[in-house]
Amino acid sequence: MISEAMQRMTENNSVIRAMFEEGKQMAARYGAENVYDFSLGNPNIAPPAAVTEAAIDILRHEDPMLVHGYMSNAGYEEVRRAVAGSLNRRFGTAYGPQELLMTVGAAGGLNVVLKVLLNSGDEVVVFAPYFVEYNNYIANYGGVTVVIPPDTASFQPDLAALERAVTPRTRAVLINTPNNPTGVIYSAETLAALAGVLRRKSAEFGAPVYLLSDEPYRELAYDGAEVPWVPSFYDNTLVCYSWSKSLSLPGERIGYLLMPDSLDGAEQIQQAAAIAGRILGFVNAPSLMQRVAARCVDEQTDLAAYARNRALLYDGLTALGFSCVYPAGAFYLFMKTPEDESTFVARAKKHRLLLVPGSSFACPGYVRIAYCVSPDTIRRSMAAFRALAEEVGL
Amino acid sequence: MISEAMQRMTENNSVIRAMFEEGKQMAARYGAENVYDFSLGNPNIAPPAAVTEAAIDILRHEDPMLVHGYMSNAGYEEVRRAVAGSLNRRFGTAYGPQELLMTVGAAGGLNVVLKVLLNSGDEVVVFAPYFVEYNNYIANYGGVTVVIPPDTASFQPDLAALERAVTPRTRAVLINTPNNPTGVIYSAETLAALAGVLRRKSAEFGAPVYLLSDEPYRELAYDGAEVPWVPSFYDNTLVCYSWSKSLSLPGERIGYLLMPDSLDGAEQIQQAAAIAGRILGFVNAPSLMQRVAARCVDEQTDLAAYARNRALLYDGLTALGFSCVYPAGAFYLFMKTPEDESTFVARAKKHRLLLVPGSSFACPGYVRIAYCVSPDTIRRSMAAFRALAEEVGL
Repeated sequence: MISEAMQRMTENNSVIRAMFEEGKQMAARYGAENVYDFSLGNPNIAPPAAVTEAAIDILRHEDPMLVHGYMSNAGYEEVRRAVAGSLNRRFGTAYGPQELLMTVGAAGGLNVVLKVLLNSGDEVVVFAPYFVEYNNYIANYGGVTVVIPPDTASFQPDLAALERAVTPRTRAVLINTPNNPTGVIYSAETLAALAGVLRRKSAEFGAPVYLLSDEPYRELAYDGAEVPWVPSFYDNTLVCYSWSKSLSLPGERIGYLLMPDSLDGAEQIQQAAAIAGRILGFVNAPSLMQRVAARCVDEQTDLAAYARNRALLYDGLTALGFSCVYPAGAFYLFMKTPEDESTFVARAKKHRLLLVPGSSFACPGYVRIAYCVSPDTIRRSMAAFRALAEEVGL
Repeated sequence: MISEAMQRMTENNSVIRAMFEEGKQMAARYGAENVYDFSLGNPNIAPPAAVTEAAIDILRHEDPMLVHGYMSNAGYEEVRRAVAGSLNRRFGTAYGPQELLMTVGAAGGLNVVLKVLLNSGDEVVVFAPYFVEYNNYIANYGGVTVVIPPDTASFQPDLAALERAVTPRTRAVLINTPNNPTGVIYSAETLAALAGVLRRKSAEFGAPVYLLSDEPYRELAYDGAEVPWVPSFYDNTLVCYSWSKSLSLPGERIGYLLMPDSLDGAEQIQQAAAIAGRILGFVNAPSLMQRVAARCVDEQTDLAAYARNRALLYDGLTALGFSCVYPAGAFYLFMKTPEDESTFVARAKKHRLLLVPGSSFACPGYVRIAYCVSPDTIRRSMAAFRALAEEVGL
């Protein structure tokens, strides 16, 4: 009774989401404190108090017809101006409101930009490991995902492979830094070299290859690590942002799409994006949360708490003999499985440890452990991890 | 630089949205009080106080990680239970939470259901006059819109024409009652006869023809008029609802999709809809507003105020000699143009009257006048309408 595309998609449904649902069932059965659910990137840190205060203040004091009403499909101009101002202060740029579209999260922004750019059969290149939901977003518009295998030594993108993968059908390259699932930050050197490849290929084929930078983890970088500003390396960069992680608002679906005036066809893309957002049924980003985000552009989540979680988990697991990528950003630990991945994931589940298989990120032989949980969950999970380590002979 | 589909769509961009933007520019130039913008269905009545109070109470007293966090893609189960409970009380039904998906407005719900149902080339039948944005929603999934010409005598759907229009390629019929742009409520007799046609055709072709009921105006019916509950006429009905109009929250993008267990393939459709919502980038309906809607399921907008607007406008315009459909619901007046439609719309604009041409609803020779404005706007606009009437010789 459903379309062929949806039949395929229900058969290959998200492992992460299935695990999230399973975790809720297990919590109901065994008690939440006895289930170690590391499956979903659902922040355990409350939004900054300023978010709640801003929302209440807006509800109390601003005109409710403005706060809850329609605005331009691109979002309130003053909100876009506030976002542009924050970017300009931080990155030395000069963005204006016309370069921004407020979106229903980064996932909404990605769908908008893919609808704007892709003709059926166009290719989008991604670097494994990556969030495989991108495949679905790309397929929504008839696009084809071209996956570059992981460089498991550095988890930086393999640019030699990119050079070979870009063809006249390549419309865009999609990156995500700080990276889900590895926590790796793409370095300035990597980005400069990546830009070089894309400039050469764009010139060779006589059409721009756009760089899409999915940045929900931009503000989550540890030890003072710098997350390079991708558009400063390559003019044809579009940025998809979300406040899901930085302000702990994943359920609210609020983010933006940056389409710099430096893009080839900038004006056409900016105009088409507002229409695409409307046509796809988003219409506009949720209005109250747009206004909250504008007031909180310079607020930060409790990064120190995530850093403590990272240390707890990384130190605990490596002490047990597990081998992990040391994450410079985001809130994921990517751990090598000491045996066949699916055997290991199933074994972990018996210890009520919910870990997402690396094959869900096109990188088998690993698991992703989301440490946006309470430190107590990490501490209590260590006995289960210890039992697991012993079982597999570490 | 943009896809071929988006090129077509930017060329044929929404007349309504273009007019909304133009209205804002005219207001900046001439002063808001000197522009009579009847273009957009943007409620002028503030949300009930209970909405603001519910939002503030939730923000103050509920766990912020629950309020702003991820939940199942279908929405919070307790929210869906509250919505089901309200429907059950009002319509004598027995819906459960599994039959509901919380959506990013009705537009989001329509996109989800069309993604779930349509294979490329499938047909969706609509009755003119109708919201032509449906064409774009349908085209998003490769569907083809089949338009049944208006019955300008009654503005009820032409069922004889439907009988001829349904083919083995017909996947769904999409209706909207109370109707945008006419304000007509489809009668119980119409719906019973419509169901009869669909049952016959489903049997004849051996596959269900689904009925999609887009109901953002459900609660806006005047003079105690009853809006029949569409699923009670036809088992294969899906309902797309939004609180945009009933709680004056169009910017918040909050609604639901009802997929009754009585549907052919109900379970498959319910499961696919949650996945489709995720894949399209909605992920879930905005979380705070889900919780607000659950607390406010039985709240109502100030219907009496819209009824007064309706009387002011209908009486005023008919007294000037204009011919209008008397609206039983929604907040639109559909008025016959006394001359060529586009000439009339341009002439009205010179009087700073922004009216949407009927051809934007596949029904030329009319204009839509949205009366979800302040009564003062209607009163002050009457001089402009009078001048217009005189110019065209009424």
